[in-house]
Amino acid sequence: MRGPTGPVADFRIVPGMSIAPNPDALPPTPPSEFAFINWVRGRTPQHPGVLVGPGDDTAVVDLTAAPTLVTTDMLLEGSCFVLAEAGPRRVGRKAMAVNLSDIAAMAGEPFAAVVSVGLPRKGGRALAEELYLGLREVADAFQTVIIGGDTNSWDGPLAISVTLLGRVVGERAVCRRGAEVGDWVMVTGPLGGSLLGKHLDFTPRIHEAMKLHLSVPLHAMIDVSDGLAADLHHICEESGCGAVLRAEAIPISDDARKLQDGRSPLEHALGDGEDFELVFAVAASVGRRLLEEQPIPNIRLHHIGEFVEKGLWLEENGQRRPLEPTGYVHLIE
Amino acid sequence: MRGPTGPVADFRIVPGMSIAPNPDALPPTPPSEFAFINWVRGRTPQHPGVLVGPGDDTAVVDLTAAPTLVTTDMLLEGSCFVLAEAGPRRVGRKAMAVNLSDIAAMAGEPFAAVVSVGLPRKGGRALAEELYLGLREVADAFQTVIIGGDTNSWDGPLAISVTLLGRVVGERAVCRRGAEVGDWVMVTGPLGGSLLGKHLDFTPRIHEAMKLHLSVPLHAMIDVSDGLAADLHHICEESGCGAVLRAEAIPISDDARKLQDGRSPLEHALGDGEDFELVFAVAASVGRRLLEEQPIPNIRLHHIGEFVEKGLWLEENGQRRPLEPTGYVHLIE
Repeated sequence: MRGPTGPVADFRIVPGMSIAPNPDALPPTPPSEFAFINWVRGRTPQHPGVLVGPGDDTAVVDLTAAPTLVTTDMLLEGSCFVLAEAGPRRVGRKAMAVNLSDIAAMAGEPFAAVVSVGLPRKGGRALAEELYLGLREVADAFQTVIIGGDTNSWDGPLAISVTLLGRVVGERAVCRRGAEVGDWVMVTGPLGGSLLGKHLDFTPRIHEAMKLHLSVPLHAMIDVSDGLAADLHHICEESGCGAVLRAEAIPISDDARKLQDGRSPLEHALGDGEDFELVFAVAASVGRRLLEEQPIPNIRLHHIGEFVEKGLWLEENGQRRPLEPTGYVHLIE
Repeated sequence: MRGPTGPVADFRIVPGMSIAPNPDALPPTPPSEFAFINWVRGRTPQHPGVLVGPGDDTAVVDLTAAPTLVTTDMLLEGSCFVLAEAGPRRVGRKAMAVNLSDIAAMAGEPFAAVVSVGLPRKGGRALAEELYLGLREVADAFQTVIIGGDTNSWDGPLAISVTLLGRVVGERAVCRRGAEVGDWVMVTGPLGGSLLGKHLDFTPRIHEAMKLHLSVPLHAMIDVSDGLAADLHHICEESGCGAVLRAEAIPISDDARKLQDGRSPLEHALGDGEDFELVFAVAASVGRRLLEEQPIPNIRLHHIGEFVEKGLWLEENGQRRPLEPTGYVHLIE
């Protein structure tokens, strides 16, 4: 029995187990987006929460257990990566990882992704497969299913957009809003110089964020995508407060020190984007405990400043001076 | 009290009611993507299902009531539209409407969207606003909230990707799989010639699909985006059957008749993409009733063929000949 009155079980199409068309019965699929979609379907694993996977007009997922996090990030050739340098596999990895980092910033658990892509007309199929394998590497590492997408060809450069769905963990998501005056500013790792490689090869702080969130009350959190100063500025804007950073407390990455471009390692740590570490606000008492106990495996938590009434400040050698929220921005005039 | 132990109510940030930053307290936002994001936030209406709207690392939505439909569609300048001809407002409308059409094809109810966009570096802000207003026109007409996005600039042409979330209506979504031998092939309206304008200005069949789905058992459904023959072929592939269309029964649009390009109006109706009417499969007895009762306001349902054991066929003047599943495809080699 079919139709809306039929049993729900009848409706469950398991991804990767689609009906193989009888080759005698229908004309062959042209060499096109559909050939690629079939290639993807054959590689899509089963997942109990995915009721309909790639190959229909939409995917159907079961998100009824918890509120849903939704984020999207688009990577554009020449602006977010240099394809010839990075290679398509790493671009795929980055496209998934930047979205996972946004789920981490809310202390959520990733679940499923859709991917839309604008491919060059020639060589697009091989490129699409490499992108997909890169996307899958990172998605698989974080139990995320690619449930659908849109495959296009055009005369423009490579454009790839991922939308990621996640589940709220605990009673609420951790937002940018919520930092309080007196809270500590903390960060999950060293910053700066990501252009030397980390912006392509980084581990989104999914597990670390969930563990922190389930251990202590996180007042506010963000991932460092625009740059430490800029992203801290976002928390301040949303929370209606200010912040002061202590220069000597900011962990500076080796890559920030390697760059010899006239800017100091500290300037790189404050202004470089795409480190994808987490910056968060906790009550001072909680921060003290985290700093002492260091409860996150393989990660060192750093105390780099405090939230204050207003302004964005850097304290260096006992002197406090205004800090510009510089970082990577897409200039749109 | 804050943090994961705090009350859930504390967490509800109402979109459009974000904390206005104190202009004295923080450095000004640079003229950039952030200025545009703030412009969007000010226009985002409140919605009880949206717990966190634009302006955080992810949006948070409540989708716990029903399984979720997820679809994504990317529009690329020069391939899916000519910006100078269509204008950005219509491109925005189309970008939302094509996604809504996919939700309609599953007989679902749209709910919320995220939008990622790659803008030119000059004039991008005005373009982004026009796109947004176009997106909103169509989204508002179908009670769909834009809950977030990603705004980028680059040296490439305009690229816009929308991901739309919807809710399953009734007991299940209507998939491409499910047509049975003997079922009628039906369609919601005339086909062909969409290039003359309908591909930009069409009404996604959201309401019609829901009404049909709640009235009768729909075995399978798809929206005509690639073309009637190609999309019927998709249903056949997924359902493991074939279909025969009767040429004289296919409703042909006035625009298909207007085109004087060497292809007949019937060829346009069979092969042109982006009509965004719905093609569906119902039991013959149900089809007979629908044809007689015409239960959908302002829409005429047409009976254009039957599902058969195998093959894709066109019957014309009593002769049956093989039908090629031609239509718009993105060639990816």
